Amino acid sequence: MTKLIAEIKKRNSFLVTAHIDPDGDSIGSQLAMASLLREMGKRVLVVNEQRPPRKYRFLAHADEIVTRIPDGFTYETAVILDAASLKRLGRVSEYVQGKFIINIDHHPTNLRFGDINWVVPRASSTSELVFRLVRRIGVKLGGERASHLYTGVLTDTGGFKFPNTTPDALRMASVLVKEGADPSYIATQVYLSKSIDELFLLSRLLATVEVHGGVATMQLTRGMMKDTKLNTEGFSDHVLQLRGIGMGVLFKELDGKVKVSLRSRGEIDVSELAKIFGGGGHESAAACLVAGRLSEVKRKVLTQAKKLYGRDYLGE
Amino acid sequence: MTKLIAEIKKRNSFLVTAHIDPDGDSIGSQLAMASLLREMGKRVLVVNEQRPPRKYRFLAHADEIVTRIPDGFTYETAVILDAASLKRLGRVSEYVQGKFIINIDHHPTNLRFGDINWVVPRASSTSELVFRLVRRIGVKLGGERASHLYTGVLTDTGGFKFPNTTPDALRMASVLVKEGADPSYIATQVYLSKSIDELFLLSRLLATVEVHGGVATMQLTRGMMKDTKLNTEGFSDHVLQLRGIGMGVLFKELDGKVKVSLRSRGEIDVSELAKIFGGGGHESAAACLVAGRLSEVKRKVLTQAKKLYGRDYLGE
Repeated sequence: MTKLIAEIKKRNSFLVTAHIDPDGDSIGSQLAMASLLREMGKRVLVVNEQRPPRKYRFLAHADEIVTRIPDGFTYETAVILDAASLKRLGRVSEYVQGKFIINIDHHPTNLRFGDINWVVPRASSTSELVFRLVRRIGVKLGGERASHLYTGVLTDTGGFKFPNTTPDALRMASVLVKEGADPSYIATQVYLSKSIDELFLLSRLLATVEVHGGVATMQLTRGMMKDTKLNTEGFSDHVLQLRGIGMGVLFKELDGKVKVSLRSRGEIDVSELAKIFGGGGHESAAACLVAGRLSEVKRKVLTQAKKLYGRDYLGE
Repeated sequence: MTKLIAEIKKRNSFLVTAHIDPDGDSIGSQLAMASLLREMGKRVLVVNEQRPPRKYRFLAHADEIVTRIPDGFTYETAVILDAASLKRLGRVSEYVQGKFIINIDHHPTNLRFGDINWVVPRASSTSELVFRLVRRIGVKLGGERASHLYTGVLTDTGGFKFPNTTPDALRMASVLVKEGADPSYIATQVYLSKSIDELFLLSRLLATVEVHGGVATMQLTRGMMKDTKLNTEGFSDHVLQLRGIGMGVLFKELDGKVKVSLRSRGEIDVSELAKIFGGGGHESAAACLVAGRLSEVKRKVLTQAKKLYGRDYLGE
């Protein structure tokens, strides 16, 4: 961290970015990092391929995240957060070419593509790393940054329910709340802001649950998804509410393809299954896109799952 | 706390009890307290009106909680946990008559019915108080007690989502995880152990959601609840997933009566509304039992809610 801090101190202008399909940790760590750099007197621009999802827009300065670089903004350094590879930046990867790259991440699969790589797989979240950086540099946390970082650790630990809910993650959460993060307000924004139509869709989704051995499945057909603006983020976690299963799958019908979201409780590595179908992800959350009709894709995925993990292992 | 510890030290036999309709905090704090007393060389019996719900039976020694006193067990002291009044003990209140009563609780409405009363309304949970007691007495926490107390603070803060998620609650959680509580395993037991029929019932429940100004309602009719063994604990929280509402109500049809479960996000005090109908509870979670048909009870409760809080306050 000493070398990282030395590099930050001697540089003046920064692009701060993170992975596509932004989540609470990538947005939270970005906003806190940008705010830290500004407090250190740096020029900063926060760029992502996409704007933050609605539920994260309550965060201070979330509206300053842009999707392209405005004319005239020059920068020497790119800080890339929460991204295992440059490919994960989408279109933004072009912006970081030829720049000095600082890579801060907690994914074990990180490719160490930076000029400086600070990759800590045992950290709960990238926000936990930015938290440590703020403390080490000695800048006051403050309520805004505390809220950014709390949102990151809250969402990346699945609301303190995933196995990465470490003593360090919880102690950091305690400090952040003391510094002004409001846990109840943040949880409300992130988890409790569904529209009534989203709730009805969830109701219909839960009616499709099936159990196949240790695998539970759910499906969203195009008929159910008439209003495509409905937010289905987090829906794939619902099937894990069932006892006695090892893995949950959400099949979402798209145009000629099916998006397959895989979840496990940490005992099996669902990213292996995703890889077979050309996808990827984490041990406990992965996804792939499979061509074909829903019923067909479902059969293929279940067949592969049984081959890969075995019936016994899925706890029939 | 000094006087409390002195009393515990000089006494030999204890009945440990808590409120009816046991929850994670009452069971967790009871089991940890009993285990602490045993380690101090005391004779201990844990008694409740009801057995713990299935989802808490993973806790060590949960099967030792009895619902009546076995012949021959004598005791001089009753430790009453997480109960605001003796009435809240149900039938067990007879067992504590004439005994030396130690009252440990975090409900602001606690009636201080004990010979010693340790009531701390700003504590997140009764488990937080037992945690402090264990630390002060200087007994090692250990994995079992850590899991008991983690379950208590987890459930009483609504999975670290309610306003009582204080820095102290999170710091304690951090210590408990370090001492051996497994946050992911415990969350799975408590929140992710539904049967498929319970999931289907939840699906049907979500289909009944209505929004009336700032109040969201749901209902469980007797027709939906044909299998009365299904566990509906936690169902009342689901309506709070909706954005823009101030209060959620679950109406559950019973024999000639309706159980009304009230939830708020902390901005209004739903226990006031429960009191009008002869019920009670906390600011953010309260309940009452109202005679009459479901549609009738619903109209009455909504009318009173609007009178009490006003349309504006409920954030229409």
